[in-house]
Amino acid sequence: MKLTNEQSQEIKDQQSQENKTKRATAPELEKILYNAIPILDHGFIRVVDYMGDDTSIVQAARVSYGKGTKKVSTDAGLIKYLMRHWHSTPFEMCEIKYHVKLPIFIARQWIRHRTANVNEYSARYSILDKEFYLPDPKHLAAQSQSNRQGRGEILEGEKAKQVLDLLKGDAEQTYNNYEMMLNERYDGSVINENVAGLARELARMNLTLNTYTQWYWKTDLLNLMNFLRLRADQHAQYEIRAYADSMLDTLKKWVPITYEAFMDYRVGGTEVSAKGKLVIQKLIKGEKILMEDSGLSKREWNELMEAFSLKDKLI
Amino acid sequence: MKLTNEQSQEIKDQQSQENKTKRATAPELEKILYNAIPILDHGFIRVVDYMGDDTSIVQAARVSYGKGTKKVSTDAGLIKYLMRHWHSTPFEMCEIKYHVKLPIFIARQWIRHRTANVNEYSARYSILDKEFYLPDPKHLAAQSQSNRQGRGEILEGEKAKQVLDLLKGDAEQTYNNYEMMLNERYDGSVINENVAGLARELARMNLTLNTYTQWYWKTDLLNLMNFLRLRADQHAQYEIRAYADSMLDTLKKWVPITYEAFMDYRVGGTEVSAKGKLVIQKLIKGEKILMEDSGLSKREWNELMEAFSLKDKLI
Amino acid sequence: MKLTNEQSQEIKDQQSQENKTKRATAPELEKILYNAIPILDHGFIRVVDYMGDDTSIVQAARVSYGKGTKKVSTDAGLIKYLMRHWHSTPFEMCEIKYHVKLPIFIARQWIRHRTANVNEYSARYSILDKEFYLPDPKHLAAQSQSNRQGRGEILEGEKAKQVLDLLKGDAEQTYNNYEMMLNERYDGSVINENVAGLARELARMNLTLNTYTQWYWKTDLLNLMNFLRLRADQHAQYEIRAYADSMLDTLKKWVPITYEAFMDYRVGGTEVSAKGKLVIQKLIKGEKILMEDSGLSKREWNELMEAFSLKDKLI
Amino acid sequence: MKLTNEQSQEIKDQQSQENKTKRATAPELEKILYNAIPILDHGFIRVVDYMGDDTSIVQAARVSYGKGTKKVSTDAGLIKYLMRHWHSTPFEMCEIKYHVKLPIFIARQWIRHRTANVNEYSARYSILDKEFYLPDPKHLAAQSQSNRQGRGEILEGEKAKQVLDLLKGDAEQTYNNYEMMLNERYDGSVINENVAGLARELARMNLTLNTYTQWYWKTDLLNLMNFLRLRADQHAQYEIRAYADSMLDTLKKWVPITYEAFMDYRVGGTEVSAKGKLVIQKLIKGEKILMEDSGLSKREWNELMEAFSLKDKLI
Repeated sequence: MKLTNEQSQEIKDQQSQENKTKRATAPELEKILYNAIPILDHGFIRVVDYMGDDTSIVQAARVSYGKGTKKVSTDAGLIKYLMRHWHSTPFEMCEIKYHVKLPIFIARQWIRHRTANVNEYSARYSILDKEFYLPDPKHLAAQSQSNRQGRGEILEGEKAKQVLDLLKGDAEQTYNNYEMMLNERYDGSVINENVAGLARELARMNLTLNTYTQWYWKTDLLNLMNFLRLRADQHAQYEIRAYADSMLDTLKKWVPITYEAFMDYRVGGTEVSAKGKLVIQKLIKGEKILMEDSGLSKREWNELMEAFSLKDKLI
Repeated sequence: MKLTNEQSQEIKDQQSQENKTKRATAPELEKILYNAIPILDHGFIRVVDYMGDDTSIVQAARVSYGKGTKKVSTDAGLIKYLMRHWHSTPFEMCEIKYHVKLPIFIARQWIRHRTANVNEYSARYSILDKEFYLPDPKHLAAQSQSNRQGRGEILEGEKAKQVLDLLKGDAEQTYNNYEMMLNERYDGSVINENVAGLARELARMNLTLNTYTQWYWKTDLLNLMNFLRLRADQHAQYEIRAYADSMLDTLKKWVPITYEAFMDYRVGGTEVSAKGKLVIQKLIKGEKILMEDSGLSKREWNELMEAFSLKDKLI
Repeated sequence: MKLTNEQSQEIKDQQSQENKTKRATAPELEKILYNAIPILDHGFIRVVDYMGDDTSIVQAARVSYGKGTKKVSTDAGLIKYLMRHWHSTPFEMCEIKYHVKLPIFIARQWIRHRTANVNEYSARYSILDKEFYLPDPKHLAAQSQSNRQGRGEILEGEKAKQVLDLLKGDAEQTYNNYEMMLNERYDGSVINENVAGLARELARMNLTLNTYTQWYWKTDLLNLMNFLRLRADQHAQYEIRAYADSMLDTLKKWVPITYEAFMDYRVGGTEVSAKGKLVIQKLIKGEKILMEDSGLSKREWNELMEAFSLKDKLI
Repeated sequence: MKLTNEQSQEIKDQQSQENKTKRATAPELEKILYNAIPILDHGFIRVVDYMGDDTSIVQAARVSYGKGTKKVSTDAGLIKYLMRHWHSTPFEMCEIKYHVKLPIFIARQWIRHRTANVNEYSARYSILDKEFYLPDPKHLAAQSQSNRQGRGEILEGEKAKQVLDLLKGDAEQTYNNYEMMLNERYDGSVINENVAGLARELARMNLTLNTYTQWYWKTDLLNLMNFLRLRADQHAQYEIRAYADSMLDTLKKWVPITYEAFMDYRVGGTEVSAKGKLVIQKLIKGEKILMEDSGLSKREWNELMEAFSLKDKLI
C-alpha cells in the first residue's frame, strides 16, 4: 500500500487533532484513529470515526439518565446476557465508520450487507487509480474438488506462474486501454490534443474486477458483528477475510467487553439442530448412535462432529 | 418536567466530562449535550451522543483521505448541491442519539420511522412513572370539520373543563389500579404482604395512552431530516411537532450548513406536479387559466396557490 | 371475535374469487386465504395475500430461468442447506401479508420488528372499536420471582377476581369517556348537538393499552421466521405467542419444506458457546467437569444442560 | 439477447401454467409474465412474480376487511392523494420480482438501492457466460465538458472505431484467459487434463466490468418508484436508464392508476426551494427579479427556469 505525500499529510493532520468532548471515548481506538492499516497488496482499512463504547450498550439497555454503568463486572455480565439471548437492539447504539480500499470483486461481496451506509469513489466522475490486486503466491489456490465455492491445493510451478502472468498482463493492458479511451492519463495529462476522450462512465467498463476502489463504510455495532461473523469465518473467501480479521482487531480496541462476548457466543460458538441435540444427548449418555439412525445427512453428521472436535466420529 | 435528584446528578456527571478526542466535534452541540430540554408537560429530549459534523458530509462525498474540506464556502456549495439533487448517502455519514420522554400515543407515531435504532424503557421489566400528558388548554381543540385527521377550534368553557377532568381522572384511576394489580407502588413498597401481584407485563395494559414512556433513539442525519420534514410540518399532530421543533434547534447547532440547505430545499420548499407546472407557466406568461381546464382538482388547485402565496387565486 | 355482517360478507366475497394466474400458488394456503382465525378474546389473523412458495426459494438460489426445481428431494436438500448455513437471501424472495387485530400493548412489541410494511387503522382519522383484551383466567399470572420479565403462578380466587374487575371496569369507563369527549358514539350518533367534540387525535389518549387495534402487516419469509423464532419462543409474552403460534400454522401451509427446516434448525435447535462446546466435549468423553471450572456462570451452565435435557446435571 | 433452447423451454413451461387463485391479479401484467424483454445488447428483464394491484393500496390505506375498493374513481382519487402527500406506506403493500441480466458496472449502480432483495448468479460457484456489453455506436459518447459525471457529443469515425475495438478485444482476451486460468471452457470441457484450474472465486477477478451477470431482484412498489424516479431520470447513466424505461412499462401494466399518479407527481413534477418560490411569485405578479437578487446561484436559477420551460429567462 502506497500513499501519496499529500494523502499521508492529510492523515497526519487528522491525527494531530486534539478536540475536547463530553462524549464517551474509546482510548485504545483513538490511538489508531485515521491510521491506514494495510490489507492485501494495495488495500487498507482506516477507522475514521466512531460513536459510543461498551458503556453505551449498558446505558441504552437500561434507558439510563447517566452513563448506565455501575461497575465493570456488572456491565460485563449484562453485555454477555444481551449477547447470549439475542437482545440485539442495545448493540445498535454504537456506530463506527471506516475508510476502505479494496478490489472491486470484494466490494461486490461486501455491499451485500445492506444495513450500512456507503459512499464509494465515483468512476463516473473521476479516474480510478492504477492499482489492481494480484494474489500472493501462497493464496493462489486451485478450485476445490469437494466444495464448489471453495479453494483446494495451492497452485505451484508453471501453472502458478501462468496465472500471475495472465492476471498482471490483462490488468495492465486493460488499464492502459482505459487511459487510451479516456484520452487522458491518470495524472490528468491529455494523450492526444486533437480528439475527445470517451465518457468516464463508459470507459470504466474496460477495467478488470481486481481493480481497487475505495469507500466510506459506516455501520452500527450489531451489523458490524453480523458482517464479521460471516466474513471472518473460514468459509468466507480469503480476500474478504483479510479485511474482516483486521476489523476484528479494531472491534477489540473499541468495545473490549463486547468483543469477548462476541468471540465466545458467536465466533467460537456453534448451532445444533433439534436432531443434532438428540445425537449429542445419546453420546453423553454413552448410548450407541449411528448416522443412519440419527436423521442427519452424512454432511450434517460430520459438521456436528467437527463442531465438537470429535474427529474419531467423522465418517 | 421534574427530574429526581439522582437523575439530575447523573446528568451533571455526564456534563462534567472533559475527554480528549481526535474525532470531529460540533462545539455548539457540545454545549447542550445531555441537557434535558422540556417538551409538553412532562416530556423532554436530550442529545446524548453524536458522530460527525458538516465536514463529515463533504469528506464522504469526496471519499477523502483528510477532512474533506477545502474552505467553508466550497463546502456549503457542495452540501447545497447534494441536498438539491437528492444525493442522499453523504448525509447518512452523521449520526445522532437522543434520550426522549414522551406520551405513548406519540411514541406510536414516532416508531413508524423504521430506519432508526430504539431502546425503550420496558414495562415488562419495570414499573412506569406516574406521569401522563394533559394538554395545555390552548391545545385542547375540537375535531376539524374539514380535515378528518386534524383539529379545529380551541375548546372553551364547560366542554374544555369536562375534557381535562375526564383525562386527569381516568389517568389517575387507571394508574392507581395498575399499582393495585401489581400489589406494589411506584416507589417499590408492597401494598399487601399476603398476596402476589399481577405480572408487570400484564398490569401495564391498564394504563392509558397518555402515560409517558422513554427511549433512546438513534438515527443518521438523512433519516433525522426525513423525520423532521414530516413531523415539523403543519399537518403533523401538535404533540409530535413540539418534539420535532426542539430537534430542529439541535440540528442547527450540530450541522449549521446542512440546516440552512434543509430549510431552503425541504422545509420551505414545495413540490409541483406536471399539471401544476403548466398552470404556473401560464400564470407567468399572463395567460388565463381556470381550475376547470387545468386538470387539477379543486383541492390540488388550492394547495398549489397556497404554496406560492397566491391568495387571490384560491377557490 | 365478532365480525359485523358487512365484514363477514366482504370476506366471503374475497373468498369466492377464482382468478387465473401464471404465478406459483400455494394450494394449502389458498384454502384458508382471507379466513379470520380467532386469537385471544377479540383478535384475529387473516392471510390476505402471498407471493411465492418453496420452489421460489430454490429458483432464486439458482438464479433459474424456469421454476428452479428438479425434484422435491433435491429442493428439500437445498432448502435445508440454505437454512443451516444462514444463506438467508433466497428466503427473502417470498412475501406474505396479514390482516391482524390485536391489543395495543402487543402491537407495541410487534412493531419493533422493523423489516416489515405496516398500515395501521388510524385513530386520528376514525373511532376505535369498543373492544379490549381481558385475559382468560388461566393466563392471569403473578409476577415471576426469578425472572423480572416473566410470569409466575396463576392468580386465583379473590386476587384474580379483583384484577379482572379492575381491567374490565377501567377499560369500559375510559372508553365511555372517550365517547363523551368525542361527543360521538362508536356508531356515529352525536351525544349532544350543542357542543363540539374533542379532536379524535386527542381523545384517543384516554384509551387503555388493552384496546384492540388492527393493521395490515407484510413481510418476507426470512423476516417472518425471525419474528416467529423470537415470538413463538417460550420466553415471549403469552399474548404475542398466541399470534405467533397461529402464524406458524400458516407458515406450514405456505412453505412446508421450509417449515420443516425452520423447526429443525431454528425453533428446535440451540446455540452453544465456545466455552459450552468444551463442556459438551468433556461430557461425551466421560471426563469430569464442574461448573466452577467451566468458565460458565451458573445460569449459563443450567441453560446448557437444559438445552440437552440433562436434568441430572442442573445445579 | 440469445437464450439457449433449454432456457426458452423453461420460460415457455412457466408461461403455460394456468393456476387458480383467490388473490388479486393484474391481467395486463400476467400477459407478459416470464417474458424476457431485451435490454442493451445481451441483457433483459423478466417479471417473474408479483403481489397485489391498485386495489391493494386502497385496501391497506383503509385497513379494509374486503377489497378496499368502492369504485374506480374513488380509488383513483385516494391513490392520487396518497402520492401527493407522501403517504408512502400503502404503496409498500405491493411487491414485484424481476429476473435481470445486466453488465456488472450497471449492477454496481443498481445494488446501491438497498431496500430490495437480491440473489445474484455466483461466480464463486459457477462460470459466467461469455457475454459482455458493447455500446451501440449511437451511445458511444465523449466525456461531457460541463458535467463531470455526464456525456457529451457522440464519438465518430476513427475514435469510435478505436474504442469499440479496444472494448471488444480486451473483453474477449480477458475472458479467454479466464477460461485458461480455470482450465475449463464455459461449456464445461477441460482444457488440459494434467493440471488443476484456478479457483473460480479467484479467476473471476480477471473479467472486465462490462461482463454480464444476472440476478433475481425483488422490491415493493414504493421502492420500485424510488428506483425509477432516479434511474429513469435524464441525469441517470444511459445504460441503467434503458432498464428503468422498460420497467416503467411493466409498472403501467401492473398498477395503471398508481402509474398515472407517479408520472404526474414524481416523474413529471419538480421541486421548488423556499427562495425559488419567491422568484416564481414575483414572476407571476409581473415584478422584476434578477438572478443576482434572488439568492439563487446561476445554476439554481437555470434549473428553476428549465423546470418551468422558461427558456427566455435562462442565463
